[in-house]
Amino acid sequence: MRELAAQLLKKIEENRAVLGVVGLGYVGLPLAVTFARKGVRVVGFEKSQAKAASVNKAENYIGDVKDQDLKDCIGKGMLSATTDFSRIAECDAVMICVPTPLDVFKKPDMSYIEGSCVEIGKNLRKGTLVSLESTTYPTTTEDFMLPILERESGMKAGDDFWLCFSPERVDPGNADYKTENTPKIVGGMGEEAQAIAMAIYSKAILHPYPVSSPRAAEMVKILENTYRLVNISMINEIALLAGKMGINIWEVIDAAKTKPYGFQAFYPGPGIGGHCIPLDPFYLEHIAKQFNFGLTMIHAAGSINDLMPYRMMNKISYALNRHKKAMNGSTVLFLGVAYKADIDDARESPALMVMDECRKKGANIIFHDPFIPEKAVSEHGNEYVGHPLTDKLLEDADCVVITTAHKAIDYEAVVSKSKLVVDLRNALKAGGRPDGKVFKL
Amino acid sequence: MRELAAQLLKKIEENRAVLGVVGLGYVGLPLAVTFARKGVRVVGFEKSQAKAASVNKAENYIGDVKDQDLKDCIGKGMLSATTDFSRIAECDAVMICVPTPLDVFKKPDMSYIEGSCVEIGKNLRKGTLVSLESTTYPTTTEDFMLPILERESGMKAGDDFWLCFSPERVDPGNADYKTENTPKIVGGMGEEAQAIAMAIYSKAILHPYPVSSPRAAEMVKILENTYRLVNISMINEIALLAGKMGINIWEVIDAAKTKPYGFQAFYPGPGIGGHCIPLDPFYLEHIAKQFNFGLTMIHAAGSINDLMPYRMMNKISYALNRHKKAMNGSTVLFLGVAYKADIDDARESPALMVMDECRKKGANIIFHDPFIPEKAVSEHGNEYVGHPLTDKLLEDADCVVITTAHKAIDYEAVVSKSKLVVDLRNALKAGGRPDGKVFKL
Repeated sequence: MRELAAQLLKKIEENRAVLGVVGLGYVGLPLAVTFARKGVRVVGFEKSQAKAASVNKAENYIGDVKDQDLKDCIGKGMLSATTDFSRIAECDAVMICVPTPLDVFKKPDMSYIEGSCVEIGKNLRKGTLVSLESTTYPTTTEDFMLPILERESGMKAGDDFWLCFSPERVDPGNADYKTENTPKIVGGMGEEAQAIAMAIYSKAILHPYPVSSPRAAEMVKILENTYRLVNISMINEIALLAGKMGINIWEVIDAAKTKPYGFQAFYPGPGIGGHCIPLDPFYLEHIAKQFNFGLTMIHAAGSINDLMPYRMMNKISYALNRHKKAMNGSTVLFLGVAYKADIDDARESPALMVMDECRKKGANIIFHDPFIPEKAVSEHGNEYVGHPLTDKLLEDADCVVITTAHKAIDYEAVVSKSKLVVDLRNALKAGGRPDGKVFKL
Repeated sequence: MRELAAQLLKKIEENRAVLGVVGLGYVGLPLAVTFARKGVRVVGFEKSQAKAASVNKAENYIGDVKDQDLKDCIGKGMLSATTDFSRIAECDAVMICVPTPLDVFKKPDMSYIEGSCVEIGKNLRKGTLVSLESTTYPTTTEDFMLPILERESGMKAGDDFWLCFSPERVDPGNADYKTENTPKIVGGMGEEAQAIAMAIYSKAILHPYPVSSPRAAEMVKILENTYRLVNISMINEIALLAGKMGINIWEVIDAAKTKPYGFQAFYPGPGIGGHCIPLDPFYLEHIAKQFNFGLTMIHAAGSINDLMPYRMMNKISYALNRHKKAMNGSTVLFLGVAYKADIDDARESPALMVMDECRKKGANIIFHDPFIPEKAVSEHGNEYVGHPLTDKLLEDADCVVITTAHKAIDYEAVVSKSKLVVDLRNALKAGGRPDGKVFKL
């Protein structure tokens, strides 16, 4: 271990190291608060002046952060936010928590990582650890970040600064596993980087788990989410077949769950939403092309997922048709636009995609979501208006579609007031109904 | 409940019901012994005179059956085997445990079920329950079995006899879960059938689990094994990419396993073997065609699996090439021909498929398997000779390929004696070796 590394390790040990967190979104803010609460001074970096100001006023905007925790951190001066990236020079370790979306052609949009690395590189002080937390394709840290940081800083990775990849595992709304108690994969580039990264993460994370390289750590996160994409896609496809065969797929899944080994249950729905599962695997598919390698499972899963909004629109259309109504001109009320139950996040929401499809066919689309009361905007830029859930709203709709199974909604009451219900989430647990009012996925 | 059903329920309750088990293989024999041990008198039906004779002499040929248990059942007269299907008339309940393989065009081979139903139908006594345990496509019980049984017996299902589907969940070699303590899905056709089936299965099975129909029960088993096929195929594909990217996939899987929710680990290997996972999903794909429905995930998984033997042959060829040797003329020693570790079953074994591919390319193929000592015959009819594992055997081989990770083998010793090792099972836990002697998947 060289002196430069030993110095930083000592600083971390003595709690004098300052942590920079780049990006104060649903990953960065919980991470910053987790470290600040454990006594590590944190500077949060944000492009958005509004977000930085909110943080500095202790105005919380992330569901997984407790208001009081943010207040405490700000009050004690353990956390401050800034838009001024020159303050990177104050930091001993920098963790990058920026988005890695797909562009409209479903290719990785690396611009946020690139922009962060340019800003960090320009302001990097010798002897700093830079750790990327954003989900991305394997080799990003070594082959994409490193050259930018070296170019901008004029320094050399491994000699003057250290690199690491440590994937976030944030599961929005998960009551049991938060940043602190979720084991965290740490893949430093070289032994010094690994020792430093393990030391800093250990300050706030209960179970850091070292792997041999950044690319191994990058692959871990992609594997986790590819597993989910593939399995949800598989059950969505089988659910559609089961529907045609007169089989209740939810009953089947619950029965399969009685197998005491070798099975994990996934449930069908109108599609796959959120900012991870529908995106991450395509980062792997992207880099695979560089190795002349086709990932047929991810490709098949993507195709199923792409088709889900159309198929769900068709389900709704068939249900309306049974009532001798056309989609064109019908009022369709969607219950839930959040991408999963009991959260307020509508990114990549399958509900919005189904709404877009029904809108294209001429339906009048309205929604109710207790977590997203006013409006929701789809990826295609269509804006939908949220309504309070009243008897009149249900009675007036030609069809009510359950797209997110928020626990707060009384679905039996919904059925009793509605003319027609399409339940895409098995919110109505019971099987077939004699009145033909309820259609299931 | 009609009198006919009530009578049978009473007989079951009072332990006077006789159970017929058709097919005394790896499913039927454990099932027969499990019931017999619980005090239900069982008649086993077998086409093979040799097997029936073995059972009657208490000569055990199934790994999951304890020799002493079989001896006890035979000794007490609780179990007897016969090739005479007229004795079906003695039975109050008949459980069918026959193979459901694929033909060479990967289509369901229903001939065993058909043959059993013909024999059972001819000899069926009024008031008997017939339960199918063989894995098959949903609708088999209602649309395939029922007409045969009605035609052959001249009786009517639901009125004169009852039908049920209850899938076997045998996991050969599983030390924790045997027939008795593995929850068992029971899908009777109609309420009487369900009540009777639950009653009879409850005699020997700790946790029978009722579902609403035979087709739901049929789908449960297919879903369980489709889940496994899809996930093993996915990890096999990703493993091949990881190899190209210099990433140790086993390290990645172990790290992903630290995620405390939403992940289940599957491990790559030379392909998927056994009599269930590579076959069952194609039963579903088959019936899906009748509904004009393509199952893209199963199709993709099948394609990956079909390619695995070629890809593994290539791996071995590349390893030999690094030693400036051609496959043609090289002696390749395979360690393990069983389809999974620590069992003696080589059905659908990926090892044999890789051996066939290497043989086609002119390699001299030999193998060692402590559970299959003498010979193994591939699906293509190629016969391979087993050898005792000696230093000379290892030293003489141009390449040693680890295809099944039997625990009894000392793999470090294997490496030390071998010129070249291709480890397709991560039997050698350590990562890269400086001597370039070991290649991994």
